[in-house]
Amino acid sequence: MLRSPLVHATALSMRSVAAPAVTLTLPVAACPGQSVADVDTPSLMLDLDAFEANLDRMQAAADAAGVKLRPHAKAHKCPDIALAQIARGAVGVCCQKVSEALPFVAAGVADIHISNEIALNPASPAKADLLAQLARHARLSVCVDDLAQIDVLAAACERADSKLDVFIEIDVGQNRCGVADAPAALRLAERIATFDHLHLRGLQAYHGGIQHLRDWNERREAAAGAASRTAAVVAALRDAGVTCEVVTGGGSGSVEFDLQSGVYTEIQPGSYVFMDADYGSNAYTGTMRFTHGLFIASTVMSVAAGDRVVVDAGLKSMAVDSGLPWVWEEKTADGAPSSSLQYVAANDEHGIVKPTGANSALPALGSRVLLVPGHCDPTLNLYDELVCVRAGVVEAVWPIAARGFSR
Amino acid sequence: MLRSPLVHATALSMRSVAAPAVTLTLPVAACPGQSVADVDTPSLMLDLDAFEANLDRMQAAADAAGVKLRPHAKAHKCPDIALAQIARGAVGVCCQKVSEALPFVAAGVADIHISNEIALNPASPAKADLLAQLARHARLSVCVDDLAQIDVLAAACERADSKLDVFIEIDVGQNRCGVADAPAALRLAERIATFDHLHLRGLQAYHGGIQHLRDWNERREAAAGAASRTAAVVAALRDAGVTCEVVTGGGSGSVEFDLQSGVYTEIQPGSYVFMDADYGSNAYTGTMRFTHGLFIASTVMSVAAGDRVVVDAGLKSMAVDSGLPWVWEEKTADGAPSSSLQYVAANDEHGIVKPTGANSALPALGSRVLLVPGHCDPTLNLYDELVCVRAGVVEAVWPIAARGFSR
Repeated sequence: MLRSPLVHATALSMRSVAAPAVTLTLPVAACPGQSVADVDTPSLMLDLDAFEANLDRMQAAADAAGVKLRPHAKAHKCPDIALAQIARGAVGVCCQKVSEALPFVAAGVADIHISNEIALNPASPAKADLLAQLARHARLSVCVDDLAQIDVLAAACERADSKLDVFIEIDVGQNRCGVADAPAALRLAERIATFDHLHLRGLQAYHGGIQHLRDWNERREAAAGAASRTAAVVAALRDAGVTCEVVTGGGSGSVEFDLQSGVYTEIQPGSYVFMDADYGSNAYTGTMRFTHGLFIASTVMSVAAGDRVVVDAGLKSMAVDSGLPWVWEEKTADGAPSSSLQYVAANDEHGIVKPTGANSALPALGSRVLLVPGHCDPTLNLYDELVCVRAGVVEAVWPIAARGFSR
Repeated sequence: MLRSPLVHATALSMRSVAAPAVTLTLPVAACPGQSVADVDTPSLMLDLDAFEANLDRMQAAADAAGVKLRPHAKAHKCPDIALAQIARGAVGVCCQKVSEALPFVAAGVADIHISNEIALNPASPAKADLLAQLARHARLSVCVDDLAQIDVLAAACERADSKLDVFIEIDVGQNRCGVADAPAALRLAERIATFDHLHLRGLQAYHGGIQHLRDWNERREAAAGAASRTAAVVAALRDAGVTCEVVTGGGSGSVEFDLQSGVYTEIQPGSYVFMDADYGSNAYTGTMRFTHGLFIASTVMSVAAGDRVVVDAGLKSMAVDSGLPWVWEEKTADGAPSSSLQYVAANDEHGIVKPTGANSALPALGSRVLLVPGHCDPTLNLYDELVCVRAGVVEAVWPIAARGFSR
């Protein structure tokens, strides 16, 4: 017979396997009170001091500008983080998919904007029906860029007897979703006005392509361009008698400019909570550089090669679409990767770490290597829990409750 | 109050949120008997005809060569697939992490090889203890490439009173884990022999770098090189009185050569089950080209741009480390992507799809686009379930039970 902690009394345990030959449960990676050194790897760790400083800094910047902060939950997928943001003054959160909103509604978040069009299948309106059902529990809004979306949303809200706020998305240079100009936006506004269950709340104008322009001035100019395109549509709609109560947009790389634009009434940054290596590679002027607080804890699993080591965190433990992770050193200045070690290749379950110079020492077998992921959002989506640490001790383990909720 | 299917009676439901303000449960993406057109997106779909043909073809090739087949479960993480492989003659499966093995042991798989060194923390031997516990339920083996690993494994097996098979991993050109030569392997073999709870089963010699060499002859020559390095170590160990009962290795790209090498007694391919776009880009001669059976079902969510469409599957619905997905068309010949549409960019929750030629029609808003992922293993790791389809109907929904089990 198995002994604790493998044996688990209930077959309904979240991590147990349905209809098993034997019921086994994966031991937890970390427990509150445990030393960070004893956390099983790979694990995703949040430095609570950095995290809280980042939340405070963003809220203070929004407050100073008189702009509302609605952080993007697609970055963290974690209700505990959303509640910490709201406790500091955020008006609610953004989600990117309808299913993603579900754990936040369940946790009591009262105001959620789906900052995206939802994929509508008129023959099988599952997403619209779920959204309309959620709108019975919280204030919900969603984006549109097509007349057909409005009709499907209205029908779902009628079935559910719920009300939905609607934002018209305009394309301000991202070349993704959104209508191109004011006349197209006006056609959508007129259609929205015909439905009792829908309410036009305003415009969404988000330009993701700006966020990672490395040069600060280039980023500033691009953000100014997006803001001026947005302002022109707001003015044209106003001239046609359509008021945009809320203009929402902005991300962690452009927010310092968006806050000063005079156009956005609400910003929706996400990654500032964590500060990944991609955002860390931007140049910043002023005070809006956030602090690295998200780490993948990995362990050296092989030193056989002699001139490199292999750690136990690879493609299944990090997203690499925006580059490989940085190796982190406690002594590293904020914003710079390790000067002595480099993560040079990711296989599915392996990472290859090499010294950057001939004299750099290699970490020993079994030692801990901390990594700063290249891209936080899809990295969070790989983990079920976030191990929250402070001063070398695990303080909490937060469920990443919307992990995998991509529908 | 919420209505079915949102309301869920039990707070222990796998997809519900702990300590919620309100208990909400995500509706399932698919149910057996449902039309494929009604499956919610993004979803991961398995074409059962292609899947079964791939399983049959690989088993027949192994049987014809008199070599044992031990498919790699790191590709699928799905006990239902492991049991289908074993029902056809596979001797068991490989896993890449100790935690990954847990759902397979629980499902009754009796013989599992951890084809990897495990990350040992001598101060906190959680992984070794879990492995030793699992070895009380199934025949378990693991790789080593360092004396220290052997000591930690032996101590854990002594604590658990279990027996473990051990493979010495040799580096045959992958430049990752594994010892370099026969003398180093012999030192490990001698140490293993000193412990009652450990049994040296043989050698592991896997060369991942070979698998995606595009040219068939180049792949053949590289596989022959790895096999001959392996054969030399086997011979040197035999001369020193150490027998390698099993020599295990090989992947979906090299298996046709590994089977004929006369060196491997066991092969461990994984991706052949699905055939992703990266393997689909290899050139094949002969009969060992497998059939594409894994698809991401996505929906067109925006057509506002006019010259491209946006689908609802991005970085959180697919791994892009080995390239962007192919757009799939029913009429496409096996092994070639769509000739009229191309997936050109992945954002977190969006995919941009463009026509390849000026005359190609764009799919309509709400229509279905099937994608072949670039890399199957880390894509499976993003989903909790595999929607199994045949002739346009959902036949089963299989849990990807080891999803996220990367420790």
